[in-house]
Amino acid sequence: MKPLNIGMIGYGFMGKAHTNAYKQANNFFDCEYKPVLKALCARNRDKAEGFAKNWGYESIETDWRALLKRDDIDAVDICTPNNLHKEIAIEAAKAGKMILCEKPLAMNTAEGEEMCEAVEAAGVPNMVWYNYRRVPAVSLAKQLIDEGRLGKIFHYRANFLQDWTINADVPVGGAATWRLDAEAAGSGVTGDLLAHCIDTALWLNGGIKDVTAMTETFVKERTHADTGEKIPVTIDDACSFLCHFNNGSLGLFESTRYARGHKALYTLEINGEKASLRWDLHDLHRLEYFDHADDSIVRGWRSIHVSDGDQPYMGNWWVPGLQIGYEHSFIHQVADFLKSLESDAPFSPNFRDALETQKVCDAVLASAKQRVWKDV
Amino acid sequence: MKPLNIGMIGYGFMGKAHTNAYKQANNFFDCEYKPVLKALCARNRDKAEGFAKNWGYESIETDWRALLKRDDIDAVDICTPNNLHKEIAIEAAKAGKMILCEKPLAMNTAEGEEMCEAVEAAGVPNMVWYNYRRVPAVSLAKQLIDEGRLGKIFHYRANFLQDWTINADVPVGGAATWRLDAEAAGSGVTGDLLAHCIDTALWLNGGIKDVTAMTETFVKERTHADTGEKIPVTIDDACSFLCHFNNGSLGLFESTRYARGHKALYTLEINGEKASLRWDLHDLHRLEYFDHADDSIVRGWRSIHVSDGDQPYMGNWWVPGLQIGYEHSFIHQVADFLKSLESDAPFSPNFRDALETQKVCDAVLASAKQRVWKDV
Amino acid sequence: MKPLNIGMIGYGFMGKAHTNAYKQANNFFDCEYKPVLKALCARNRDKAEGFAKNWGYESIETDWRALLKRDDIDAVDICTPNNLHKEIAIEAAKAGKMILCEKPLAMNTAEGEEMCEAVEAAGVPNMVWYNYRRVPAVSLAKQLIDEGRLGKIFHYRANFLQDWTINADVPVGGAATWRLDAEAAGSGVTGDLLAHCIDTALWLNGGIKDVTAMTETFVKERTHADTGEKIPVTIDDACSFLCHFNNGSLGLFESTRYARGHKALYTLEINGEKASLRWDLHDLHRLEYFDHADDSIVRGWRSIHVSDGDQPYMGNWWVPGLQIGYEHSFIHQVADFLKSLESDAPFSPNFRDALETQKVCDAVLASAKQRVWKDV
Amino acid sequence: MKPLNIGMIGYGFMGKAHTNAYKQANNFFDCEYKPVLKALCARNRDKAEGFAKNWGYESIETDWRALLKRDDIDAVDICTPNNLHKEIAIEAAKAGKMILCEKPLAMNTAEGEEMCEAVEAAGVPNMVWYNYRRVPAVSLAKQLIDEGRLGKIFHYRANFLQDWTINADVPVGGAATWRLDAEAAGSGVTGDLLAHCIDTALWLNGGIKDVTAMTETFVKERTHADTGEKIPVTIDDACSFLCHFNNGSLGLFESTRYARGHKALYTLEINGEKASLRWDLHDLHRLEYFDHADDSIVRGWRSIHVSDGDQPYMGNWWVPGLQIGYEHSFIHQVADFLKSLESDAPFSPNFRDALETQKVCDAVLASAKQRVWKDV
Repeated sequence: MKPLNIGMIGYGFMGKAHTNAYKQANNFFDCEYKPVLKALCARNRDKAEGFAKNWGYESIETDWRALLKRDDIDAVDICTPNNLHKEIAIEAAKAGKMILCEKPLAMNTAEGEEMCEAVEAAGVPNMVWYNYRRVPAVSLAKQLIDEGRLGKIFHYRANFLQDWTINADVPVGGAATWRLDAEAAGSGVTGDLLAHCIDTALWLNGGIKDVTAMTETFVKERTHADTGEKIPVTIDDACSFLCHFNNGSLGLFESTRYARGHKALYTLEINGEKASLRWDLHDLHRLEYFDHADDSIVRGWRSIHVSDGDQPYMGNWWVPGLQIGYEHSFIHQVADFLKSLESDAPFSPNFRDALETQKVCDAVLASAKQRVWKDV
Repeated sequence: MKPLNIGMIGYGFMGKAHTNAYKQANNFFDCEYKPVLKALCARNRDKAEGFAKNWGYESIETDWRALLKRDDIDAVDICTPNNLHKEIAIEAAKAGKMILCEKPLAMNTAEGEEMCEAVEAAGVPNMVWYNYRRVPAVSLAKQLIDEGRLGKIFHYRANFLQDWTINADVPVGGAATWRLDAEAAGSGVTGDLLAHCIDTALWLNGGIKDVTAMTETFVKERTHADTGEKIPVTIDDACSFLCHFNNGSLGLFESTRYARGHKALYTLEINGEKASLRWDLHDLHRLEYFDHADDSIVRGWRSIHVSDGDQPYMGNWWVPGLQIGYEHSFIHQVADFLKSLESDAPFSPNFRDALETQKVCDAVLASAKQRVWKDV
Repeated sequence: MKPLNIGMIGYGFMGKAHTNAYKQANNFFDCEYKPVLKALCARNRDKAEGFAKNWGYESIETDWRALLKRDDIDAVDICTPNNLHKEIAIEAAKAGKMILCEKPLAMNTAEGEEMCEAVEAAGVPNMVWYNYRRVPAVSLAKQLIDEGRLGKIFHYRANFLQDWTINADVPVGGAATWRLDAEAAGSGVTGDLLAHCIDTALWLNGGIKDVTAMTETFVKERTHADTGEKIPVTIDDACSFLCHFNNGSLGLFESTRYARGHKALYTLEINGEKASLRWDLHDLHRLEYFDHADDSIVRGWRSIHVSDGDQPYMGNWWVPGLQIGYEHSFIHQVADFLKSLESDAPFSPNFRDALETQKVCDAVLASAKQRVWKDV
Repeated sequence: MKPLNIGMIGYGFMGKAHTNAYKQANNFFDCEYKPVLKALCARNRDKAEGFAKNWGYESIETDWRALLKRDDIDAVDICTPNNLHKEIAIEAAKAGKMILCEKPLAMNTAEGEEMCEAVEAAGVPNMVWYNYRRVPAVSLAKQLIDEGRLGKIFHYRANFLQDWTINADVPVGGAATWRLDAEAAGSGVTGDLLAHCIDTALWLNGGIKDVTAMTETFVKERTHADTGEKIPVTIDDACSFLCHFNNGSLGLFESTRYARGHKALYTLEINGEKASLRWDLHDLHRLEYFDHADDSIVRGWRSIHVSDGDQPYMGNWWVPGLQIGYEHSFIHQVADFLKSLESDAPFSPNFRDALETQKVCDAVLASAKQRVWKDV
């Protein structure tokens, strides 16, 4: 067992999700490397200490530059708001640290390019936390597509629907709601939600050629969480786009935080010549599958309960019929990352993969702004 | 086209459902015989006239004996309360009329035996309106079982759940609620609801050997609809039983009118060695099917939208994806009855088939009363 | 009871659906007027006679102009391919006939304008068969929206997915597949499928301001059904668009005949501030409803089985729990049309309403062709 | 933070599930006590060492009596086959250890009585791992019932369906399949699966008065896993029963390992005067709820995604819309047990609670054997 010393930057929702994954991965997956919770870094010392104590981090730092200087840190996990990703990642690369960066990769494509160059120049292993690829049902979808079960693809559609910002009293900015602040987040639902849909789409269905998009900000002003001031809302509350994939199929994407009744409803569907697939995050342990090769009188959408040992990742968990949850996607990502270190193979998605998603996001935002089709 | 002159006795819910079926069958199914709405018979002349006018019956009668004497009546449809089935059916048989009798066949097995003997002695075509056999999804289930797709059967379970008598103010007796009056109905949910479940079970899974049952009457007194008097409720509000089928499989049945949230939820499920099936009346156009022979990674319950031309009856309706409804089961039964006349083949279920269901009902009621297992 | 003499032009799928509705409406709905199947008109005399005999039309015509000249015809039902709608409708209006026209109204907006002018000049009652408004679950959606239960609307999304043209051997043109021939149909899925989605959307959510669209023809050449020649396919196989509604909400629409596994899957969803709704045609008797006013611990999407007597149209059918099917939407439309005659009120949707849908279709097709946003 | 030193006996499926729970509880729940993985006990030293190393147990024992003698053990977790529960538990009680015992409590009621007496005499905290009570959706069901939202209860039904023993080649006995050996397990599906259904039922709906039951062994002979000999199968493959609850409601229970297509489908439904509930283990993060108080036109079963912070346990996990899985029920049970230690309150279910389930199981097995109703 080789220790892999983790330096975690941030202690929010994602800090918790990643840390939990580091703690559990080796109990369920057989890996040579084992993450060690070496240091937790956050500006607020009290919060850093509280989080470190709860999760068992051995030490804390309040300055990420100090963290990067430490010899006992092998890998840095960047869980800060998006506007800090670039600087930290580039410095970490220079310091020779492996980097596990929360998505989206960057504020925009230009930043992402710099980050890719930095990690490639440094030759450090790097990955981005597009965790939904490793929900077993989604991994199974990938496997079925790769096996050619769908045939030629005609349609891909995905959306990510939430409803938590309908209330105009939700503030913007600060620690809890920086995702509503364009300064910190870069964009609204495009980078936060659509980026997930795009990453999975590129993985399952290949590159996107061009897009026509529409964005909207329904609530125009909100109170700043820290200052209490009414300020204009600068992010996109909703974003949808049509696109052509390189393989000739048509795409349709939508995300919003104003879809009453949907909490985190990421759905995707792929229609191929021979079969179709669909999945949604609210029942993430199921994959819907329609196989046109079935006898015509008994043809129908199958609801596959992805919990059998021969389905991706599930042999490492419980027994058939017993479902896993959201957090397991992170555990799988950690386990796969650890295995990639053993074999020295590049991890996917890495910075370069995530840059492709960034490019689509940028094209989408530009198309929406200019009301024209944009090539990616 | 040969006319088949119908004499309908009764004008309630089932009178409407059957009449609608007579009117539509030949538009959608190619049959030599065509029902003609010759006479409507009911004691109340005004109601008889109103119903006859709305549906196009050519004449009315207020005495069923008078109806039976008419030479221009080929077939009698018995839609009266259950306590009149026997007398009318026997007289109709003597008069040489074909008989289409609403279910359950009779008040009990003894009555049913007499009725069977009468129609067999007279040699008249006869059928009982266990219409659910001819819901396309249920017919498809029968086809799949007959093709051996399920293999050896282990389990059969069915229930019929309603909630309309929870309110203690619902009256009993009279024209609208005779089903709550044991004098008129023979039993409560056993004859009204369970009989449907049993008929389908015998058809799909063969005979039942023995039963252990439980009944309950939750509301002990109700007001009589006609007299306004408080009287004891003599029917069973709920009935459930366990049983052994002759083929070695185990059965579990339940019906009630106290299952809040279920209006007419007839469900059935069959588990075989190789495959399983399930169906419910609230989404009657779908059949759920699990085939263990599917590749293990994509195995799952299929939701079959039974609307394709190669599925039972559906080639005569619309196009794939467009569902039919409840009333169509009656239209199919009429069409099949008309075809049985062409070929002189016995119709199924006829009186003799329905008698088997009656025997199970009687065993169930006796078991519940005596708290012992009963052979059927 | 006042007779309403119908002259039906066409005998295809829609001829059957409409005729069935004329036959049934008065059995279930109390209307002063009653349709009489007076004449069936079709160029092919044999087919006309066969259809007329099966359904009980009193006479046939082989020339629609002859039909229009008959004094015993009150109303003309146009079930021809789309390219004949305009001429017949204008002549029928001139002849003073009421007109019930299959959708889409016309080949394009210009034709539709002429048709509107003609019926308005003639003052004849007119309607277009956008039947899905009268699926009880959709009518209930309209009622809930009108009652203000959804509050401000943020999102509207709809699609209509089929898969019957994936096979490149499906021919084009002729009697059965004229919908694949732009000469006869005007457009592909846009006029055939999306038009339904648009009509419902305009009814439920008001006017559409502008659109950006994308169309595709996946199979570029097909064999002509009559000539056997390989010809270029000129219709759109798939069409999707984004739009702004006048009320500030965002729309997203898609239709295709290449979505493997979907037969006639028309779905719609509306997200409002206070509540959301969704519906699909494969389970047309259900409406999904999410009410944010529910206690937070028991909030969830409700699956409403639209079969109760207090829900639109359902008091005229069976009892709670027993579903109706596709064809009933036409029966409801006939019943409502008959009632509109009693009260001399305009029917909705009439030609003028359907013209609005035509305008959106035209804008969509133009946007897709020119790759720009188009105002409606 | 007070350490709670755990001595785990067994390393199978449940050893893994419990150990995982001990490791995670304090990360997500704020408890004074914190489990410490002190010792793992198993007869096979190699397996004990492997398991201990993977999970971080500080030491191993190969004799449970040695474990009980250790002063550094506060609590013993019994994960052995059922036939060892009694002896270990009684000795552990004598040794003053807290006991966390896997379900079912014992081989039969007599054994269970002895165990209850032992822990009560010793005054040691004790609990039984009926983990499904602490699936958030099930806990929510309990809360809704306790709030009186269902009113008077009429019906309770539950089943637990699996299909893993259909294959007659599955062996019996040994380490992996001791559950198929009556010597080790006491009974088949009754103790393994129905016991879960009964525990939840008693918790949600109160005591059971009497039962009539039926059991079956479909495969009569199997090969012993260790000896390779063909031996008679002595357990019940399937078991179903009807019952009366003390509150006047009717119960219907079924379990089997021969329901093709169901892996671990534990379902329950409760019908009350005012509302109904249902839940199943294959989608354990959802609770179905029907509230008759809803406006009649929008009444329907609600599918509640139990992932909001105000629903049981969920405030300690992720954000709304993100589901948890099977293993979390164990984590919640550990957290609640730790809290019960803080307040010195008895934990539920403890041995005494679990004894009630044992009594029902015994009555069920006796009823099935003797074919008579049995009082509990």
